Amino acid sequence: MATPDPSAPTTPVRVGIVGVSGYAGVELLRIVHGHPGLELAWVAAGKWAGKQLDEAWPGWAGLGARTIEAFSPEEIALDGPMGCDAVFLALPHGHAGAIVPGILAKGVRVVDLGADHRLRDAEVYAEHYGAPHPHPEQLATAVYGLAEWNREALAGAMLIATPGCYPTAVALAALPLVGLVESGLADAWVVADCISGVSGAGRKAGPRNLFCETTDRAQAYGLGGTHRHAPEMEQTLGIPVSFTPHLAPMNRGMVATVHLKLRGALELAELRARFEDAYGDEPMIQLCDAPPSTADVRGTNRAHLAVAVDARRGVATVCCVIDNLVKGAAGQAVQCLNIALGLPETQGLPVVPLLP
Amino acid sequence: MATPDPSAPTTPVRVGIVGVSGYAGVELLRIVHGHPGLELAWVAAGKWAGKQLDEAWPGWAGLGARTIEAFSPEEIALDGPMGCDAVFLALPHGHAGAIVPGILAKGVRVVDLGADHRLRDAEVYAEHYGAPHPHPEQLATAVYGLAEWNREALAGAMLIATPGCYPTAVALAALPLVGLVESGLADAWVVADCISGVSGAGRKAGPRNLFCETTDRAQAYGLGGTHRHAPEMEQTLGIPVSFTPHLAPMNRGMVATVHLKLRGALELAELRARFEDAYGDEPMIQLCDAPPSTADVRGTNRAHLAVAVDARRGVATVCCVIDNLVKGAAGQAVQCLNIALGLPETQGLPVVPLLP
Amino acid sequence: MATPDPSAPTTPVRVGIVGVSGYAGVELLRIVHGHPGLELAWVAAGKWAGKQLDEAWPGWAGLGARTIEAFSPEEIALDGPMGCDAVFLALPHGHAGAIVPGILAKGVRVVDLGADHRLRDAEVYAEHYGAPHPHPEQLATAVYGLAEWNREALAGAMLIATPGCYPTAVALAALPLVGLVESGLADAWVVADCISGVSGAGRKAGPRNLFCETTDRAQAYGLGGTHRHAPEMEQTLGIPVSFTPHLAPMNRGMVATVHLKLRGALELAELRARFEDAYGDEPMIQLCDAPPSTADVRGTNRAHLAVAVDARRGVATVCCVIDNLVKGAAGQAVQCLNIALGLPETQGLPVVPLLP
Amino acid sequence: MATPDPSAPTTPVRVGIVGVSGYAGVELLRIVHGHPGLELAWVAAGKWAGKQLDEAWPGWAGLGARTIEAFSPEEIALDGPMGCDAVFLALPHGHAGAIVPGILAKGVRVVDLGADHRLRDAEVYAEHYGAPHPHPEQLATAVYGLAEWNREALAGAMLIATPGCYPTAVALAALPLVGLVESGLADAWVVADCISGVSGAGRKAGPRNLFCETTDRAQAYGLGGTHRHAPEMEQTLGIPVSFTPHLAPMNRGMVATVHLKLRGALELAELRARFEDAYGDEPMIQLCDAPPSTADVRGTNRAHLAVAVDARRGVATVCCVIDNLVKGAAGQAVQCLNIALGLPETQGLPVVPLLP
Repeated sequence: MATPDPSAPTTPVRVGIVGVSGYAGVELLRIVHGHPGLELAWVAAGKWAGKQLDEAWPGWAGLGARTIEAFSPEEIALDGPMGCDAVFLALPHGHAGAIVPGILAKGVRVVDLGADHRLRDAEVYAEHYGAPHPHPEQLATAVYGLAEWNREALAGAMLIATPGCYPTAVALAALPLVGLVESGLADAWVVADCISGVSGAGRKAGPRNLFCETTDRAQAYGLGGTHRHAPEMEQTLGIPVSFTPHLAPMNRGMVATVHLKLRGALELAELRARFEDAYGDEPMIQLCDAPPSTADVRGTNRAHLAVAVDARRGVATVCCVIDNLVKGAAGQAVQCLNIALGLPETQGLPVVPLLP
Repeated sequence: MATPDPSAPTTPVRVGIVGVSGYAGVELLRIVHGHPGLELAWVAAGKWAGKQLDEAWPGWAGLGARTIEAFSPEEIALDGPMGCDAVFLALPHGHAGAIVPGILAKGVRVVDLGADHRLRDAEVYAEHYGAPHPHPEQLATAVYGLAEWNREALAGAMLIATPGCYPTAVALAALPLVGLVESGLADAWVVADCISGVSGAGRKAGPRNLFCETTDRAQAYGLGGTHRHAPEMEQTLGIPVSFTPHLAPMNRGMVATVHLKLRGALELAELRARFEDAYGDEPMIQLCDAPPSTADVRGTNRAHLAVAVDARRGVATVCCVIDNLVKGAAGQAVQCLNIALGLPETQGLPVVPLLP
Repeated sequence: MATPDPSAPTTPVRVGIVGVSGYAGVELLRIVHGHPGLELAWVAAGKWAGKQLDEAWPGWAGLGARTIEAFSPEEIALDGPMGCDAVFLALPHGHAGAIVPGILAKGVRVVDLGADHRLRDAEVYAEHYGAPHPHPEQLATAVYGLAEWNREALAGAMLIATPGCYPTAVALAALPLVGLVESGLADAWVVADCISGVSGAGRKAGPRNLFCETTDRAQAYGLGGTHRHAPEMEQTLGIPVSFTPHLAPMNRGMVATVHLKLRGALELAELRARFEDAYGDEPMIQLCDAPPSTADVRGTNRAHLAVAVDARRGVATVCCVIDNLVKGAAGQAVQCLNIALGLPETQGLPVVPLLP
Repeated sequence: MATPDPSAPTTPVRVGIVGVSGYAGVELLRIVHGHPGLELAWVAAGKWAGKQLDEAWPGWAGLGARTIEAFSPEEIALDGPMGCDAVFLALPHGHAGAIVPGILAKGVRVVDLGADHRLRDAEVYAEHYGAPHPHPEQLATAVYGLAEWNREALAGAMLIATPGCYPTAVALAALPLVGLVESGLADAWVVADCISGVSGAGRKAGPRNLFCETTDRAQAYGLGGTHRHAPEMEQTLGIPVSFTPHLAPMNRGMVATVHLKLRGALELAELRARFEDAYGDEPMIQLCDAPPSTADVRGTNRAHLAVAVDARRGVATVCCVIDNLVKGAAGQAVQCLNIALGLPETQGLPVVPLLP
């Protein structure tokens, strides 16, 4: 974890949430609400602007009345009507890229939960997101928010791009394996088959998230390496990733099962040691003996991992589960902001799962 | 709410949880873990005794190692090896009745989440639970833990019996209606059709809680007023209740829809005023305009209620949703202990729902 | 059941399905496909017109290629391009009313699964459906398709209006109770609390049928007797019905739990005898000893019922489960057409449930 | 498909079902019930023996009363009290091996849905099933019932071992790829990540199939190639298979996503042509353009497959979905029996999915 920072703020940091009507947005709301070092300045959303928070989320009735604002970068300077120290952007891709310069110009920190600042290469962005990036120069300054692996760069960062949910789960599972590839002990190719809950598809109605089109069934999508998260994974891991996402009938939760072909014998103990080295001291990462269930991290910012070696077939397999809306979105965003601000890294992060 | 109590403990109260391997037990664990005024002394369970907590609940791995104890009343005196100030009993009915005298004899407070101390009349108990009560004299001293309606008696109580999940939801919905009956404005008969999630059936495997025997379907059970919770409801309301429980494929959550036949016209505003009077200042109870969803209270100790009058047919209908494991079990148990100890009543109680 | 009809058709009856892109439509497709006495002439739908059937329903790939037609009453005369003997209309309310005269004018039989022809009183229709009926004169000629209770009128009928799913379940449960009211043995008031699967909300995306807004939760809606199906129930039963629908997270299935306040003692055997009289010979209706589960009728045209008397509180309770898309829609539509045509009444109707 | 056989039986073949109380057993019941060439002689089960069928399966009430028998090989000779032509064995592994010789000795055909006769090598069996095979000599005579790939051997077979559900899905997806390996165009290593519904875990209660331990979550199991189905897959494919099963919260359904590392460029058209060659004429197998959903084969004996090439990473990926209880168990068993008997291969097999 990041060491304590003497320059950390001593009064609550005022934050705003853009996109509070979506699933990542309401999860940010939940986490900020319980965070002793953050103070919620305002919430904003597009088509819900002007309505009350409990119209968008009846579950928030009685927990503090708030009007949902229309977000305007002009008003967020600390002395403006929506003054704040930091802004969370929980928006569909293509929206954040255009507004971030205006926010940064006010001296306000940005944590972008969307896809607009994750890829360093503007051409790769354009190829996978179907349009040129509106501010490609920002891509160089954005810090990739895979918290456990990028703390140094996150300290003090003004623009943070948190990873996608799939890239988070796959990177946590596969990064400790990359050394095997570099040492020539494994092929430079990762197979990553993943399963996501339906909240990953967002709150906008469509054929992929209707109850009767998703419940009591499962399916793959994005066959053939076409999902936009694949280049993001490869940027992180530095080797090709065959990524295939699947949809399962659950609200939240994500499973990443990754495989690496070994070039020689590898003892399970040796593989496990690599994961102990990487994660032994990490409060948000748990190494398990048995394959983990997404339920065990439901509502938390934690990842549970299990590792295995199939000696007969020469394969290392790692399974990682996260809550796609927490460690895969809102929780990791807060974890990154904690690091950027010099707050205790785990402050305010939920770790106790809702069972069952 | 209860007024602050100058005699409230100023250091954390040490509590033990008996039955931590069950769903109410692990929910107690979650709430106690986040409660600033309570300190977890130990956890116990029957067949899991001797195992580690994260064997029973892998989701608790890394959140503090604990061995699950075998509960023994002999050891819980404050200077004993399982010393504590209060004990939560989350056990199937028939277990708590026998052991409570031994606990109380040690000067240790008891919150019984099971059915053994809810009914005041030992004959009614024997009729509905199939065996005589082992200590009928206790029934007179137990305080019924319907927190919002029984605060005075709960203050300082040494033996608290928290209501069943169905009786909690039905009582919260129907108690403000009883005045209509007393004034002759309504028939003395409540129809209560309820829906419960499967966690209400407990963690012991049986035909009613197998996935493939419960998912993607719904059904009634206990037709004809035979469910054990009916006499408990009638004890609270003082009028006959036709109670029919139904099972729906969800982890948690409970809906109580109650109907009262009116003897004359009643304006919706008048009905609503009765509920505002009863609950307007209650932090755990929310009056809603639209019929509430169990999701809006998921993981919280809150109840959401909506009221309606069908003028054409002369009927008042009230719908109440709770989380059966929180307001219907572990949360209400902690709320009652807070009152008994003189702690702030809402201290440590979860109120923010996990959405979606 | 209807007695065999010597005038029944001896060659397959050609039928068309309007609204095949919806859930009731594809269920009609499944049943017609397995029906030896019917031949599918064409399928039609609005926005899907011109596409292939397996684009709307990938599960139908390889089971017979068909283009989805744009429905036009002009073309359905037997010698027209969409010539047929009968048409099923599975459309949202407000659509069928306008087009039925044109279909009947071609001599083509109509089975309307929607709401437009269920109510006999045009004023009641206008009040509950928010607009005057386009052809109120049709309401007098439409035959209400509650098959087990209206066979005589259905024989030879040219315009059949099948009941709503809730009215089907409630009527099957409550009709044998009406005699108790007529004999003065019970109050003239039925409480009907019902639970429906999400397919009842249709395939059009909206807040009530998104996966993450419906799964792992339950809720009531239409509190206070405001649901449009209430007057339909009252038309059938002739007494007031307090009807409250609830939504549960399942694809299909409907539970109706109905209560009647007795004015004197009633033996369970006597109540059961009334149901034996009504349904003992009905192949589509099963009297059960235990409360039935919707899973037991999944995919079938059958209803399972259980009856109970609560002697202590003077209440008769009946629970009825159906598959809302079969007995509550497509199956009952085919059953009615069978009767109208003089075919064996149960021909082609699915009776074996998909378990689990 | 198999060509018509002039020696096929012209009167219904009498069959018995052993294990009717389980999920595969009741699915056999459903299929046999609708099969014009089969006649159900009796049903049997262990602990349910002596009870009525509708006690084990209330959904079968009214569909033909039957007593569940205790199975005894002594009584199944055609002139015995349980006389029949063929027996389906739907039993946990370890049970069928011991009783098959007694059945065959009566001249009665056996279709074993369990694992006891799938592996040809008795040592591999002993290693993976934890005990020596009771009759290893049978392994040589059993015919492996992967219908589409083994028709010749199935014709006339007296002992058929139908594949496991996972091996069925993986084999259908991967067999057309084996030629790529044989031609040196791909590595001899298949990665197979699969997802199963909970019915695959059987009806016996355990931690893996409780509702609250399975719903709203997903997880892998059998990491590291330890699942018993892996050697079965390798027996069929002839190359190493890294198989990882996952559990998703659905009743039925199975997804197999398999990957093959290419050694050179491969056009999608070429890959697709291989699948067209293999399956173009197969009525039970559908090649799809989009990744298929398990819902599209729910309740049917069909498999839907989609193929993809990731040119950038040099990988062929195939996704296959089946209903684990039909094509993965009962349906394939009937398909094999049809072939063995010379009946039309698809006779009586369900092909229309239950949607939604």
